[in-house]
Amino acid sequence: MALWGGRFAEPSDHDLRALNDSIGFDRRMWRQDIAGSMAYARAIAAAGIITREEAESILAGLEVVRGEFESGAFVFQAGDEDIHTAVERRLTELIGAVGGKLHTGRSRNDQVATDFRLWVMDAIDEIDGLLHSLQAALLEKAQAHTETLLPGYTHLQPAQPISVAHWLLSFFWMLARDRERLRDARRRTAVSPLGSGALAGTPFAIDRDQLAKTLGFDTCSSNSLDAVSDRDFAAETLFALALAGTHLSRLAEDVIIYSNPLFGFIALDDRYSTGSSLMPQKRNPDPLELARGKSGRLIGHLSGLMTTLKGLPSGYNKDLQEDKEALFDAVDTVKLLLPVLTAVIRTLKLDAEKMRAALGDDLLATDLADYLVKNGLPFRQAHHVVGQAVRAAQAAAARLSQLPLDSLRQLSPLFAEDVREVFDFDAAVARRSAAGGTAPSAVAQQIEAAKALLSR
Amino acid sequence: MALWGGRFAEPSDHDLRALNDSIGFDRRMWRQDIAGSMAYARAIAAAGIITREEAESILAGLEVVRGEFESGAFVFQAGDEDIHTAVERRLTELIGAVGGKLHTGRSRNDQVATDFRLWVMDAIDEIDGLLHSLQAALLEKAQAHTETLLPGYTHLQPAQPISVAHWLLSFFWMLARDRERLRDARRRTAVSPLGSGALAGTPFAIDRDQLAKTLGFDTCSSNSLDAVSDRDFAAETLFALALAGTHLSRLAEDVIIYSNPLFGFIALDDRYSTGSSLMPQKRNPDPLELARGKSGRLIGHLSGLMTTLKGLPSGYNKDLQEDKEALFDAVDTVKLLLPVLTAVIRTLKLDAEKMRAALGDDLLATDLADYLVKNGLPFRQAHHVVGQAVRAAQAAAARLSQLPLDSLRQLSPLFAEDVREVFDFDAAVARRSAAGGTAPSAVAQQIEAAKALLSR
Amino acid sequence: MALWGGRFAEPSDHDLRALNDSIGFDRRMWRQDIAGSMAYARAIAAAGIITREEAESILAGLEVVRGEFESGAFVFQAGDEDIHTAVERRLTELIGAVGGKLHTGRSRNDQVATDFRLWVMDAIDEIDGLLHSLQAALLEKAQAHTETLLPGYTHLQPAQPISVAHWLLSFFWMLARDRERLRDARRRTAVSPLGSGALAGTPFAIDRDQLAKTLGFDTCSSNSLDAVSDRDFAAETLFALALAGTHLSRLAEDVIIYSNPLFGFIALDDRYSTGSSLMPQKRNPDPLELARGKSGRLIGHLSGLMTTLKGLPSGYNKDLQEDKEALFDAVDTVKLLLPVLTAVIRTLKLDAEKMRAALGDDLLATDLADYLVKNGLPFRQAHHVVGQAVRAAQAAAARLSQLPLDSLRQLSPLFAEDVREVFDFDAAVARRSAAGGTAPSAVAQQIEAAKALLSR
Amino acid sequence: MALWGGRFAEPSDHDLRALNDSIGFDRRMWRQDIAGSMAYARAIAAAGIITREEAESILAGLEVVRGEFESGAFVFQAGDEDIHTAVERRLTELIGAVGGKLHTGRSRNDQVATDFRLWVMDAIDEIDGLLHSLQAALLEKAQAHTETLLPGYTHLQPAQPISVAHWLLSFFWMLARDRERLRDARRRTAVSPLGSGALAGTPFAIDRDQLAKTLGFDTCSSNSLDAVSDRDFAAETLFALALAGTHLSRLAEDVIIYSNPLFGFIALDDRYSTGSSLMPQKRNPDPLELARGKSGRLIGHLSGLMTTLKGLPSGYNKDLQEDKEALFDAVDTVKLLLPVLTAVIRTLKLDAEKMRAALGDDLLATDLADYLVKNGLPFRQAHHVVGQAVRAAQAAAARLSQLPLDSLRQLSPLFAEDVREVFDFDAAVARRSAAGGTAPSAVAQQIEAAKALLSR
Repeated sequence: MALWGGRFAEPSDHDLRALNDSIGFDRRMWRQDIAGSMAYARAIAAAGIITREEAESILAGLEVVRGEFESGAFVFQAGDEDIHTAVERRLTELIGAVGGKLHTGRSRNDQVATDFRLWVMDAIDEIDGLLHSLQAALLEKAQAHTETLLPGYTHLQPAQPISVAHWLLSFFWMLARDRERLRDARRRTAVSPLGSGALAGTPFAIDRDQLAKTLGFDTCSSNSLDAVSDRDFAAETLFALALAGTHLSRLAEDVIIYSNPLFGFIALDDRYSTGSSLMPQKRNPDPLELARGKSGRLIGHLSGLMTTLKGLPSGYNKDLQEDKEALFDAVDTVKLLLPVLTAVIRTLKLDAEKMRAALGDDLLATDLADYLVKNGLPFRQAHHVVGQAVRAAQAAAARLSQLPLDSLRQLSPLFAEDVREVFDFDAAVARRSAAGGTAPSAVAQQIEAAKALLSR
Repeated sequence: MALWGGRFAEPSDHDLRALNDSIGFDRRMWRQDIAGSMAYARAIAAAGIITREEAESILAGLEVVRGEFESGAFVFQAGDEDIHTAVERRLTELIGAVGGKLHTGRSRNDQVATDFRLWVMDAIDEIDGLLHSLQAALLEKAQAHTETLLPGYTHLQPAQPISVAHWLLSFFWMLARDRERLRDARRRTAVSPLGSGALAGTPFAIDRDQLAKTLGFDTCSSNSLDAVSDRDFAAETLFALALAGTHLSRLAEDVIIYSNPLFGFIALDDRYSTGSSLMPQKRNPDPLELARGKSGRLIGHLSGLMTTLKGLPSGYNKDLQEDKEALFDAVDTVKLLLPVLTAVIRTLKLDAEKMRAALGDDLLATDLADYLVKNGLPFRQAHHVVGQAVRAAQAAAARLSQLPLDSLRQLSPLFAEDVREVFDFDAAVARRSAAGGTAPSAVAQQIEAAKALLSR
Repeated sequence: MALWGGRFAEPSDHDLRALNDSIGFDRRMWRQDIAGSMAYARAIAAAGIITREEAESILAGLEVVRGEFESGAFVFQAGDEDIHTAVERRLTELIGAVGGKLHTGRSRNDQVATDFRLWVMDAIDEIDGLLHSLQAALLEKAQAHTETLLPGYTHLQPAQPISVAHWLLSFFWMLARDRERLRDARRRTAVSPLGSGALAGTPFAIDRDQLAKTLGFDTCSSNSLDAVSDRDFAAETLFALALAGTHLSRLAEDVIIYSNPLFGFIALDDRYSTGSSLMPQKRNPDPLELARGKSGRLIGHLSGLMTTLKGLPSGYNKDLQEDKEALFDAVDTVKLLLPVLTAVIRTLKLDAEKMRAALGDDLLATDLADYLVKNGLPFRQAHHVVGQAVRAAQAAAARLSQLPLDSLRQLSPLFAEDVREVFDFDAAVARRSAAGGTAPSAVAQQIEAAKALLSR
Repeated sequence: MALWGGRFAEPSDHDLRALNDSIGFDRRMWRQDIAGSMAYARAIAAAGIITREEAESILAGLEVVRGEFESGAFVFQAGDEDIHTAVERRLTELIGAVGGKLHTGRSRNDQVATDFRLWVMDAIDEIDGLLHSLQAALLEKAQAHTETLLPGYTHLQPAQPISVAHWLLSFFWMLARDRERLRDARRRTAVSPLGSGALAGTPFAIDRDQLAKTLGFDTCSSNSLDAVSDRDFAAETLFALALAGTHLSRLAEDVIIYSNPLFGFIALDDRYSTGSSLMPQKRNPDPLELARGKSGRLIGHLSGLMTTLKGLPSGYNKDLQEDKEALFDAVDTVKLLLPVLTAVIRTLKLDAEKMRAALGDDLLATDLADYLVKNGLPFRQAHHVVGQAVRAAQAAAARLSQLPLDSLRQLSPLFAEDVREVFDFDAAVARRSAAGGTAPSAVAQQIEAAKALLSR
């Protein structure tokens, strides 16, 4: 039975029910719904709206319902349009009409917002842990490779040599920001709407602050009309997940490219590669491709929810029921991805020789210009001179380091014998020792900072 | 067992499987997968790749598999990573190693594209029928109300009187465009990728055109590399559904507003209204709000899929596995919405008196300006004069029609006694008889055109 | 001249330049670019890379360039591909080859990230001020209307009476969250990338922390590879603006509906209404419609930027140049909207009588159920009884309060004479006095909290 | 002066004007606006609403206005809120009050829809030509490389050898679909709304069909209420452009990866590469990165416009003014990209040797399995055997073709001496000769089909 039949001459149409019911997806909030109802029962008892005995009966009944959910024994009925209805229906079966007192002063509008916020808080906590694990994997791998060099790219063209540690840690900091953003989102989620009624507040003298604390909220909402229709927390959490998704997609893109045999920098473990139904030789980096692909899905959910919110009039509108599936799916998606990516990083095989072999002299062109700068040439001119040297080497099919000193001196008299010292990849990396640079010394500091962050 | 284990020393990780497997959602393409395999078995038999006997064995086996799916007896196994694997696995259980011949020259890359295109073609056909029904409901309702007037709005401010038929038919034409777009999308979907192999084409002399025809495609793809990674048809179908969704959201917005009691133009049938868990008086237009809200979901799916497609390298990439859930959900969403909206329209109660009562004299201000135009005043000046008249009436707290002729003549000497005739809503509507106008005569033509379209 | 010609045999194609150059839009960052260069000149002087005299010459030159921008005298040249090139080109014209020393150890990769972050920090500060003003306008208007009642809606159907103050303040809190989110975004923006070089860090002993402080950043970035390609701050700011946009769109939707004459709750001032070119009577709420419409634009920009970020390989990629136009336009859009909406609220004319007239007895149905609850009936049963009462009243074409006591008692014997007292809108509002409720007493607290927030 | 001042006591606020005016962007529709007005003047003259002399005066005046726009002499005034106002204002300056007759029976609602549709039709035609050019460049390049082989990739892992022609042509067919979609969009755009008035149709006996034909439309709209608020054509054109953008982004991704020196398959011409301000050696594929990045922008615009359309009530709403900037920018973006990409393709340097060198024996693993199939082994078993062979070769650090026959025969006795013939890349390619395959013979057919398409 619906919670609201009295005013209606005819029952709902079957197709309408199929469209309208949310039980198919909101059932996963049973834990939050029961917790909310238990806290609410205590609150209305404390306010004298129900007796202590009634409260005890309700609490005992809800405990039974919880047990049924936990054991998988709970049986949904055809009339259970949502999790709130299902729980109240079952409660009333168990304890009789007194179960009908639970909803006094409460609306599904504040109830669902309460449940959903609690669910999101839990989800953020879980994802925070998973992000922490991926960070730990990146950090661990980085620590082993502070002096392993590979070509650093911009525009996917060779730019300057960097260390593998530096490359891996770049993703560490992206995830650090993701966790910060999720923490901020959680803070704005942890605001209790309970006690807002349908829109106007409750006429019963409930202690909303106490109620909020009991449920694990930080505080309670300031305006009941806002409280029942605010889905900012869902949008913000979706955004944080979608942006995290773009970070995973960027990590994925690098790993996919570096796994191509012409690069050969990286090999995925067998357990995280998959094959082809047709081509027997294939070892495909499927989990990375899914990470990259699923970032689209996350962005789509964000875009979809914000579109749904756009232009709604004040107060609760049924459109808001669309908030859950998008966020549920986003949370599930991220929770599927993170453990696999963590394992991928942990088991990644790095081919230091192939990386080293890919370091070309051109990667030191900037250092060559810096050499001229140190000898007094303004950088812009040094850049031009070295550009010509690169071109000359290319024309001569020679490596930059093989250009005779004479040729270099034709481009600038500032070149001298010691120019040979420029062509040392390790030295070039070691020079980039200012904060945040790729030098082992700077990376060591980075690693300390990263450790400190993880142990917080 | 995966279809591709030979090359791997270690089995896939459990979490990787959970991430990677698509069986959870692609199982709904079992009908298309089996049809595709049956046609393919015939094609490779015709090309002499398998014997007639082998083909018959495979076909018989697939028939059994189909029966199992139809009866619900099919049992998925842990190793069934996708519907293709599940079907081939079961087939081989049934008929032995010869089942392993079915995949000769075929890749899951062309197979999944084939299955998915067939599924989309069927989905478009179904949705076309549902859109037709909604159009029919709008048309039927419109025919009964060619002379029932309501205020037409622009900017949600009263503009000019229109007929209910004209209002309802405006949605008819939106849906007509949706159906056209779906038809165009279907044409571009009905292109068979089968026989493209993994990316490079097939080395077996298969008659791809024949294969395409057998499966109900219009034609076959021109380039195998494109064929295995083309998801334009999915994006285009999603777009057509999302745009249809905006039309439904616009219809919803009107109905929601017109159902507010201050308007009171419309009442939803009890069967398509819902109540509140707290407020006993409530009758809420939930299905309309869901139509409005779900348009966000559809737009999100479109945005998500296009983002997934963006920047992919050539050939099949696992990212493409993200194509299905978005489209499946979009199709399901539209199929949930349309029958309910059709029933809502069929059972809509219109309150012609409230609509008529809402017609204010201001709605005839343009006709008043046209009156001056007919008496020789350039329209721009006539507009200005009438604007002043409206202001004068407002200042006098009078209706526009009640302004004394003297007052009007102070604004323009072109006003005469016959100005009273302007204040006739039915006449104003009847005047708009040019093609596409709201006059009953023009609406009658519109209805004829609409009928003709539906009976095509 | 481009900054990078030496290596190239042929100049860039004209069409390529049209596509590639960003000067058309990044010129608006001239102030940040010059500030960044001045700080950088001091930093490389402090590190001994250039002499004190060279630094002074560069600073003096940059001061001249700044003056030219401020006075509008700066002349762009054909070769100025971006603001960085334009400033360095002009500097070199003014002070000669020493100008070419400024770029030592700096890349446009860290330079543009620095400029853009500074620009975003300024933009957030400006928008924060504009949001504060809109909050102040809402608060001021609310203070004048704590006892003016209007129907509160859910599903756009009459729900319960609320005060105008409560309605207006609901938007106040949405904007409070927006400002919080922008503040969080600003914190993550205020991280200096300067000194990251192209990707690997700088080989020069620059004090990056000092440099960051000088420019107004809170801190400096931890990883140079991340620093040059991190656009999270842009995405996050866009998100905060887009979500603020949905809030404005919701305010707009209410005002648009309440301005329809059948509601008539609200009238926009003439200065913020517009007319029609054809219909002389029209007064349209254009600014609200634009607020609603432009929320789509903001969501589109967010979606677009995130899509651009998706799947990029490590390090700077030219795709990132797409970050600016989206954010510039979003900032401009919000800066256009907010002052107008603030003025709309300040000048809004409220029609308290029409609002009061729209209060129907049905709005008290919940209070009627609460009456039964107080007399001992479980709420769920009370809800059912009142639902029947509403139906009975409707059938009798009577107001709920006019139902004879006898009729009520047929539904429940708990109804007594004092049921009449339920039908008092002001009392019903006053009862909702728990925190966040619509009662004048609760709203007074809300106003105090709002004031405190604004004066922080 | 606004076209609608009469009804207002106070002029518009300055900030409101800045928000509301569209002249900043809709001025680019001057040509369409004037064409529309000339056709309309003739239509109302034909209907006897204005005299022939008045029509001639208006037409002559509009001719002058057009001349002013063409020569750049047109001067906008402060009051010109949009292009329609600007043109009518100037017309009236030139020919006096009779200019005010032009707007008789016309609203800006149907006028702007007319202008915009005409503009979109022109834009589609232009873009169709640019797509044709890019197709021609791809086709031309393909024709020169039907026998140049490179590794074909799936999952960016080596899959099977394909020809350069086949790879290039895969993009040809994507663009062919784009052009088809644009053609379909154009057909739905070429529907004249003129004569729909503000929403209800026109009371003047205008021949709307004739008017439509004169302006180059195919037909005229069926319902005036729909006509003034239909922006499907804009959304559909945006979609077609955004999907084309994903195709360009995919081409870009390939070219970017293939230009990395470890691949080295491709080099961009100097004219289409750019350098770095810091690193002298750099040659970056900027135009491709912009193509990839700008696909995000296009998807964002689509998402934004659809969001704007969502949930609007019937009839024109000011929100619709947001339609133009998104589409204008999308059209400009595509028009910037296409000529550069066409030139990039035309001037692309292919390194056939590097491509050939990248062909590894593993690319023939499928052919090796097919060899076993031809010797009677079911494909699934053959796949498994070859998977083991690949693993054995890898373990032995040998190429697949170097595995001794004995080793192979341990895996399957079906291997014989003639297995050596499998290891021929050209033969493997030549075998894929079924329609759409990569064999030179199939590609020749593909080229014929492509030529036929272009010459249509």
